[in-house]
Amino acid sequence: MHYKLALIGFGNVGKNFAKLLERKKTRLKKEFGITYQIVAIATGSHGLAINPRGLDARKILAHLSKKGSLAAFHRGKPVSGVVDLIKRCGADILFEISPQNPWTGQPALGYIEAALQKKMHVITANKGPIVHGYQKLRRLAARSRVQLRHEGVVMDGTPIFNLYESTLPATDVRGFEGILNATTNFLINAMENGKPIDTALEEAKALGIVEANPAVDVEGWDATSKLCCLANVLMGANLRPQDVDREGIQNLSPEKLHEARHRGNCIRLVVRAWREGRKVRGSVKPTEIPLTHTFATLSADTTILTLDTDTMEKISIVEGPGGPHQTAFALLSDFINVARA
Amino acid sequence: MHYKLALIGFGNVGKNFAKLLERKKTRLKKEFGITYQIVAIATGSHGLAINPRGLDARKILAHLSKKGSLAAFHRGKPVSGVVDLIKRCGADILFEISPQNPWTGQPALGYIEAALQKKMHVITANKGPIVHGYQKLRRLAARSRVQLRHEGVVMDGTPIFNLYESTLPATDVRGFEGILNATTNFLINAMENGKPIDTALEEAKALGIVEANPAVDVEGWDATSKLCCLANVLMGANLRPQDVDREGIQNLSPEKLHEARHRGNCIRLVVRAWREGRKVRGSVKPTEIPLTHTFATLSADTTILTLDTDTMEKISIVEGPGGPHQTAFALLSDFINVARA
Repeated sequence: MHYKLALIGFGNVGKNFAKLLERKKTRLKKEFGITYQIVAIATGSHGLAINPRGLDARKILAHLSKKGSLAAFHRGKPVSGVVDLIKRCGADILFEISPQNPWTGQPALGYIEAALQKKMHVITANKGPIVHGYQKLRRLAARSRVQLRHEGVVMDGTPIFNLYESTLPATDVRGFEGILNATTNFLINAMENGKPIDTALEEAKALGIVEANPAVDVEGWDATSKLCCLANVLMGANLRPQDVDREGIQNLSPEKLHEARHRGNCIRLVVRAWREGRKVRGSVKPTEIPLTHTFATLSADTTILTLDTDTMEKISIVEGPGGPHQTAFALLSDFINVARA
Repeated sequence: MHYKLALIGFGNVGKNFAKLLERKKTRLKKEFGITYQIVAIATGSHGLAINPRGLDARKILAHLSKKGSLAAFHRGKPVSGVVDLIKRCGADILFEISPQNPWTGQPALGYIEAALQKKMHVITANKGPIVHGYQKLRRLAARSRVQLRHEGVVMDGTPIFNLYESTLPATDVRGFEGILNATTNFLINAMENGKPIDTALEEAKALGIVEANPAVDVEGWDATSKLCCLANVLMGANLRPQDVDREGIQNLSPEKLHEARHRGNCIRLVVRAWREGRKVRGSVKPTEIPLTHTFATLSADTTILTLDTDTMEKISIVEGPGGPHQTAFALLSDFINVARA
């Protein structure tokens, strides 16, 4: 099976994905019968390129590292924008990995719709479209007889959606709780070490782990988006961020964390979802947790999700330090699952 | 797809499995197109029965709860033993859930071979055969073009083997560590509360959570068997229990645990596997762990496994309080996976 791939977004995740594909090339062919070529890439600030005969990822990575533009690799008539690229590139699978917009899911939502209408499989690591258009996109994918996969939207490449789909069959998820935003972990950790939130935020920015708009992390929007993705997919809900009882960490301080510690507790930004009659409810809140609780032992760069199910009762999955390598794996595992189906 | 099922072993796990099948009957049909009937059951001390037209699980459960024998449900010529039952029952899937024998894997190993030779799919929750015959059984299953599934041998129904197979494709497991034996957790916990090991063991026996031969738990054989299953399946090893550097908890005492606690640590029976050149090595040992480590926060009845992989780095899965309900789910999920393939 030969696949033509298009990548919308080519930041850290896209670059790591291109490298991971190279690294696993032999195994993909031998174990899964998969060969591929990248026929289109769109970036936010380094141009676009289509080449029906295949783009050389290694050359592009080298070129971009010298601040070059993708335009040099384009073959054919000029492209007017991302939707034009999607319509014309002839890819079998679209990877949507542009930056998230937690409030509307755009423009990624439109890109995915365009790709599904062109009967491309879509693999995304972008929460926005799953939060704001999951049920609609699913129907569109079913109508086009293609797959929509999104393992990377929560906890990077840690299997959550694939875990549920493949390993927990005939199972109802009654609810879940977790710590899903590593940046707020980092900020709380810095505050626990006595730093005020502004200093903590500057440090996080310097490390490049804060969203372009810090409110996305600090005010809990990212955690809320993840909650909505999980609730909508695992619990059949139709939650939007505005439906969630959301409180960020902006009112935490070294003093408050110190007081909690004196009570034998710590504070983490905890995500929870549960059923209330036929409705699914969700909350994202700074929550006091005993130091003896598993949630309290996770290092700042790790995340955890505990599912409450009708077959296994409680089952938790923990991601070790995560980042673009892990999200790249989400894309790879979704790619293999598209081919397996 | 209609499946005829045979159950070898009908203790807590088998009974819970029969109940779970009943509970999920409608969903199995609607969602997976699966219908089934149980055509044979073999027990250790309550006889055997074959009925090609289907055994009524509800009636059997009621009958056995009154100490009845299965013989009352048998139709046809007398059965001379379990292997005879396997050969004559005409099942499509054999569920091997008889008690474990960590030293030889027998007689379960022989039962599974007989079933695979008769071209039955085999689903087992019995560690012995996977420890002692995995590579051979796999070849036998491949030759008969049937499946051999064994999700339930480690951490009950928590997806480990299915997690690896379905959600971590193209991934190498470099090693793992975990706490896999809940009974030793219980014993250590009791010793931490000041009870000597003999008292702790009596309490565990009263709760029915100790293997018939307590050495299986106390001397680390059960944890060692689980290590071998994981290493053999996830790392392509061929480890036997005697290859593992094994130390049980028999030399722990309330005093030693108290001293560890003074150093800010606790002691748990930790299982580890790693690669050394082309070899896979394993150890099972009482290990001091800082109280701030995730492993230290697990309650006595929970287990954890951390995989170290080349794609996701560290990823952990935690089972909440586990037992026969969870193992029954392992059998159900394996059953569905047989039907899906």
